[in-house]
Amino acid sequence: MASSNLRYGEGVSREIGMDLQNLGARSVCVMTDRNLSRLPPVEVVLESLEQSGVGFSVYDSVRVEPTDTSFKHAISFAKSESFDAFVAVGGGSVIDTCKAANLYACHPDADFLDFVNAPIGLGKPVSRVLKPLIAVPTTAGTGSETTGVAIFDFEPLKAKTGIASRALRPVLGIVDPKHTLSMPERVAANSGFDVLCHALESYTALPYNQRRPRPLNPLHRPAYQGSNPISDVWSRQALHVVAKYMKRAVRDPDDLEARSNMHLASVFAGIGFGNAGVHLCHGMSYPISGNVKTHSAKGYSVEHPLLPHGLSVILTSPAVFNFTAPICPERHLEAAEILGADTRRVKREDAGPVLANTLRQFLFELQVDDGLGAVGFSKDDIPTLVKGTIPQERVTKLSPRQHTEDDLAQLFEASMKLY
Amino acid sequence: MASSNLRYGEGVSREIGMDLQNLGARSVCVMTDRNLSRLPPVEVVLESLEQSGVGFSVYDSVRVEPTDTSFKHAISFAKSESFDAFVAVGGGSVIDTCKAANLYACHPDADFLDFVNAPIGLGKPVSRVLKPLIAVPTTAGTGSETTGVAIFDFEPLKAKTGIASRALRPVLGIVDPKHTLSMPERVAANSGFDVLCHALESYTALPYNQRRPRPLNPLHRPAYQGSNPISDVWSRQALHVVAKYMKRAVRDPDDLEARSNMHLASVFAGIGFGNAGVHLCHGMSYPISGNVKTHSAKGYSVEHPLLPHGLSVILTSPAVFNFTAPICPERHLEAAEILGADTRRVKREDAGPVLANTLRQFLFELQVDDGLGAVGFSKDDIPTLVKGTIPQERVTKLSPRQHTEDDLAQLFEASMKLY
Ligand SMILES: NC(=O)c1ccc[n+]([C@@H]2O[C@H](COP(=O)([O-])OP(=O)(O)OC[C@H]3O[C@@H](n4cnc5c(N)ncnc54)[C@H](O)[C@@H]3O)[C@@H](O)[C@H]2O)c1
Ligand SMILES: NC(=O)c1ccc[n+]([C@@H]2O[C@H](COP(=O)([O-])OP(=O)(O)OC[C@H]3O[C@@H](n4cnc5c(N)ncnc54)[C@H](O)[C@@H]3O)[C@@H](O)[C@H]2O)c1
Ligand SMILES: [Fe+2]
Ligand SMILES: [Fe+2]
Repeated sequence: MASSNLRYGEGVSREIGMDLQNLGARSVCVMTDRNLSRLPPVEVVLESLEQSGVGFSVYDSVRVEPTDTSFKHAISFAKSESFDAFVAVGGGSVIDTCKAANLYACHPDADFLDFVNAPIGLGKPVSRVLKPLIAVPTTAGTGSETTGVAIFDFEPLKAKTGIASRALRPVLGIVDPKHTLSMPERVAANSGFDVLCHALESYTALPYNQRRPRPLNPLHRPAYQGSNPISDVWSRQALHVVAKYMKRAVRDPDDLEARSNMHLASVFAGIGFGNAGVHLCHGMSYPISGNVKTHSAKGYSVEHPLLPHGLSVILTSPAVFNFTAPICPERHLEAAEILGADTRRVKREDAGPVLANTLRQFLFELQVDDGLGAVGFSKDDIPTLVKGTIPQERVTKLSPRQHTEDDLAQLFEASMKLY
Repeated sequence: MASSNLRYGEGVSREIGMDLQNLGARSVCVMTDRNLSRLPPVEVVLESLEQSGVGFSVYDSVRVEPTDTSFKHAISFAKSESFDAFVAVGGGSVIDTCKAANLYACHPDADFLDFVNAPIGLGKPVSRVLKPLIAVPTTAGTGSETTGVAIFDFEPLKAKTGIASRALRPVLGIVDPKHTLSMPERVAANSGFDVLCHALESYTALPYNQRRPRPLNPLHRPAYQGSNPISDVWSRQALHVVAKYMKRAVRDPDDLEARSNMHLASVFAGIGFGNAGVHLCHGMSYPISGNVKTHSAKGYSVEHPLLPHGLSVILTSPAVFNFTAPICPERHLEAAEILGADTRRVKREDAGPVLANTLRQFLFELQVDDGLGAVGFSKDDIPTLVKGTIPQERVTKLSPRQHTEDDLAQLFEASMKLY
């Protein structure tokens, strides 16, 4: 496993101008979204850049939950000048967009689908060295500052997919805990659910020594290795922090201790899942968010219908972990216990229901919509959702439990209503 | 923080020939020590190299606990052919020697002291990119496969010092759990004590936000950042594993579960201390091992007098943590609790004695020599030992508690006898 360079501490983003000088940058592309462009994290970064005298241009049109179209828009901006470094200030939407912009600006002749994951794209390996990208995360969610992944909604198929290559990984992640204080309540909740799913899915992912086929050459090992003793440390630690701090962090935006800890948990879970992988909640979320019709997300200042990523992964979590528990009940019980369940007298056979109920209770207390039904889906959508999950095999094959299309249909159905 | 690429799993060292092919290597320098050159870890690696058809030469004259002289010997070997990659198969002695050989082979005109830590050397920064080095650790100890540090005994001063630069960090650490099965009982014990000290020292090191001076430019941040929320995860995890598995791993060489877990703990503690730093046990150990007179170490097949690194750090640990506890009693109590003490009714003021006694008990059960007195030192040596600790300020300044030369003298004195 590998992880990025990280810098953590209050005020560390103020040093970013010097970091860029140290990298020898003369012309920096700063990416963010419209909303953040008026908030302190961006202010601090731009001030530091100005002080350092490094030249820069700002692109603030990142789309929240990006699409192929919005990626291409950012890519043309990145190609419009000859930037020698990139800075992303924002949540996963911004960091992922910036990764893609850097990638294609360094491959001006590539077609967009060249690097997109197969089977949707060609999944070509990235052979060039990209320009350095520094990520300054402002949500406590995706962990994108630690991963080599960029996710977007591929509109022609109404499903998310992504680009995955170690080359995309930021050279530095600057984790400045005060940057999450301005997150609206629902952004804190949904990005926190993303952390929770990264932790739970990577902790229960197929173990690294059961992954098949074993590539003959280590070069062909996939980015996602399956759960292993190193990713386990991160995933478990993230779970502990979520259990201890997430409710406080969502409910009280001024609770710096809770918000800082969730910020760290997003890094931990990012390293964990970036190494072990995620499985069904993420794989099934991609058609869920791609097929959103009318849902509009509170706290997300955007004009388009939107099902935030964290919400789209958490809604299926009770059904998913109920389904996967029989394969590794100990880990599911341990997760339930960390999340507050009393598991002392629970039988292994009940690990699934116990973790599912613990999750339902957790979601209920954080006022999550009552299932896929509550965010605009009906049973009629299930075939579409199942169909949209099939191309996500790169992710779903890390599920500890093998599954058929019928299983997927049942998981979607069981997720229509939670409480 | 940054960490190396790591690969973990049974048999993963068999892929090393392909790794070298993937790196485009044609002429590889394999380093090990005489003893290991006849054991399975080296056999497996050489077989894989032969199968892959990559050319290689073996240097098996690494000195256990290397010196400036032995480093220079290895360096001339590395300069004798134009190697394009390095492989170290062994404990810290081998990995550190190989790092130095690679460094100076890539800087053929440098003087030996150029890169050695100040004040003993000039501490020049490494600006060139070195050849890739793959480390295959065979002890569960130093964590050198994860760090940018190479330690040696500087004979003119009778004290250890080192070279520290991110450039030295191996590109890949291959952690193959069966490789530690052949460790003799005392090698398992002493290298395990190294893990224990890395974990305890990094967990109690000066917190990252109290380190002074704060460098104005992030480029000038030292390699050792002080304890921080990320290194804490590793250090605490390593401590848990040591508490659970170390005694079993020392006593039963066939206990694969215990030995594998200790192997992982050495990686965890390596990432923890490589990021946070170590402090007094390590700083004080450098003159201890440099001034060894007659001690000969059981299980270490060497001809020269030797005080193994792990033994030289652990012998002062009861005194050191008794001394540092008043500054952060919670962490000292937590460590004692992880190591098995019942701390429920212990007052904060007693954290020092409680952790010290827990350590004494742990050492006694693992049949550690009864203090510095038992390995050849007397009170008359204390001034020399104190004097040899002064140049280790790079390390000792990470102690949470400020200390005078008198304090150091008292710590050495208190470590003469343990039980
Ligand atoms: N690359 C990866 O490894 C990875 C992993 C998981 C998810 N993702 C992707 O990341 C995206 C979701 O990212 P996200 O959850 O971080 O949210 P986001 O980037 O979509 O932002 C959500 C909203 O919160 C606002 N916001 C962000 N930080 C704020 C702050 N500090 N103060 C005020 N408002 C703030 C944004 O302006 C936006 O309106 C999805 O596209 C998802 O698929 C990527
Ligand atoms: N670079 C770092 O970050 C770092 C950290 C701590 C210590 N160190 C240094 O590392 C050195 C100590 O290294 P170490 O404790 O790993 O031991 P070592 O490399 O000195 O080896 C000790 C003995 O064990 C033998 N041995 C090693 N592995 C074996 C195996 N699998 N089977 C049988 N015999 C085996 C060796 O041949 C040798 O005789 C010291 O010089 C110390 O200062 C470096
Ligand atoms: Fe996610
Ligand atoms: Fe050590």
